[in-house]
Amino acid sequence: MVGVVLNIDEGKREVASVKEIIDLTAADMARVNKLILSKAGSDVEMIPEVANHLISSGGKRLRPMLTLAAAQMFGYSGEDHIKLATSVEFMHTATLLHDDVVDESDLRRGRKTARMIWGNQASVLVGDFLLGQAFRLMVDVGSLDALDILSTAASIIAEGEVMQLAAAKNLETTEDEHFAVIKAKTAALFSAAAEVGPVIAGASKPARAALRSYGMNLGLAFQLIDDALDYGGDSKDLGKNVGDDFREGKVTLPVILAYRRGTAAEREFWKDAIEANNADDAGLEKAIGLMTRHGAIADTIGRARHFGEIARDALAPLDATPQKDALIDVIDFCISRVV
Amino acid sequence: MVGVVLNIDEGKREVASVKEIIDLTAADMARVNKLILSKAGSDVEMIPEVANHLISSGGKRLRPMLTLAAAQMFGYSGEDHIKLATSVEFMHTATLLHDDVVDESDLRRGRKTARMIWGNQASVLVGDFLLGQAFRLMVDVGSLDALDILSTAASIIAEGEVMQLAAAKNLETTEDEHFAVIKAKTAALFSAAAEVGPVIAGASKPARAALRSYGMNLGLAFQLIDDALDYGGDSKDLGKNVGDDFREGKVTLPVILAYRRGTAAEREFWKDAIEANNADDAGLEKAIGLMTRHGAIADTIGRARHFGEIARDALAPLDATPQKDALIDVIDFCISRVV
Repeated sequence: MVGVVLNIDEGKREVASVKEIIDLTAADMARVNKLILSKAGSDVEMIPEVANHLISSGGKRLRPMLTLAAAQMFGYSGEDHIKLATSVEFMHTATLLHDDVVDESDLRRGRKTARMIWGNQASVLVGDFLLGQAFRLMVDVGSLDALDILSTAASIIAEGEVMQLAAAKNLETTEDEHFAVIKAKTAALFSAAAEVGPVIAGASKPARAALRSYGMNLGLAFQLIDDALDYGGDSKDLGKNVGDDFREGKVTLPVILAYRRGTAAEREFWKDAIEANNADDAGLEKAIGLMTRHGAIADTIGRARHFGEIARDALAPLDATPQKDALIDVIDFCISRVV
Repeated sequence: MVGVVLNIDEGKREVASVKEIIDLTAADMARVNKLILSKAGSDVEMIPEVANHLISSGGKRLRPMLTLAAAQMFGYSGEDHIKLATSVEFMHTATLLHDDVVDESDLRRGRKTARMIWGNQASVLVGDFLLGQAFRLMVDVGSLDALDILSTAASIIAEGEVMQLAAAKNLETTEDEHFAVIKAKTAALFSAAAEVGPVIAGASKPARAALRSYGMNLGLAFQLIDDALDYGGDSKDLGKNVGDDFREGKVTLPVILAYRRGTAAEREFWKDAIEANNADDAGLEKAIGLMTRHGAIADTIGRARHFGEIARDALAPLDATPQKDALIDVIDFCISRVV
């Protein structure tokens, strides 16, 4: 078993944890979960079957929690945050269903992907259905600002996925280009999820901007840590196998850094592994060795910490609230996943 | 070359034609076409490439024309019908991109499908992007009623596609079940496209209901004729090959009727062709022979005419306008495609 364990968390709290945000949003999340089940329902049996397979697979539901906490933070007392949080989770679920088809993935959160059980066709179409339901929930809320934020995110996410597809297996991808991809495909939804909270709470423009920036930078940190974990986590915790990205030939930041910093001979190894897709277990071990030698994983985590700090400072001007503390804990938690 | 030519059009006008709706909407459509190109654009090159391949392939753009004519009909004088018509066409295009992946189609409108050129992955993701852009355009218009109608249609279309997938190759599908599928997967968008016209024009509830019903019944007629054409049209006009549905084992109404009315031996033929997918050219010729013997194609066209008549009567109470005449012509045109 190859693995890299790095302790890079320097958070102020003793144990960075999502416990606080979970506690604060528990009552609301119970209602979100109910709404998820109800709105993923359909007389067409295959729809709830496919949807529930993924929905019940134990995702953290971090994104809807962001929406709920961000709405609470500004004293929101209505019902619409439940609908918007559900909508955000549906957008995420739809993306995952389509991602698995695009990446030809077999496993997701430690379980067979929907496409392995029901086929690519069902995954594409049920994803479309959930996206449609997400929009209906937003329309039901009736906030044009929230609709604008979330529909823009939907386009940007798809744009990011296409960007990623177009850059697939391209080891010459620059770090800036890579950040543009993960900003679109991952961070845009975190950002939208966080921003719609203050929006429906009728909070000020600076408050909206703060939550938008928090979400965006948290999303970047989250994705970078996810990419680092793929070369050094524990597959049980991950719900995916260490080395999945390597085997699929994905050009993530640890690969980009190791490739750029490598010798000519090392670059040949990367080309063979990623571009020609000769990525076996021995290759994975060698890849992790090269990454360690060049500090590629540690520096990926360093980049994540950089974005995490920006996320924290985005919230700095806001009044102290339990929600603010909880959102800061989420940053530390995301980064400490590599511990 | 096998083929069935049936003249069943009994429309009052000498030549049923879409000329009138094309003329009435020409100026608006020029703006829609411009907006389509602009909103299908992206810095991610692959997106306009894939999108324009399908967009430029000469679809009739009937759906956006319905929106424009329906808005004009009630004296609408703003700009929003351009955006909504574009949105409708994007929803349609997104569906086509995903459909081709689901059906594993090689040809669409006489050209290679996007998935054959850029792969399934690009088709899924560019479809998602166009759907996102469709929603952004609707949000830009800012009519919650129009948003409600179109987002509901998006869910229903996906639901219809899943229904069709679940019923795939099931020869026991009843006619009612089949109508439920085509109502969702095809007619719902025609209905939404027509209804948002009076909605943004601020027309009365009965006017909205009239256009909704017109669109729904027109959509049903349109799909049934399309299915009949697959067993008796000319592939140049169709932009698809006669027998595509047969070769793909699709259970459309001509098949359902021929199967239900057939002898035990004939049912064995259908099971072998559709369920076991032994559908070659000789099989296609035999299939058309059986359909002709049992009046399956003629009766499919008869069912289409039934829905066409309901569509016509839906508009009956409305004041006489050039737009009303043009919309009625569209019904006759759809049905006369089999002539």
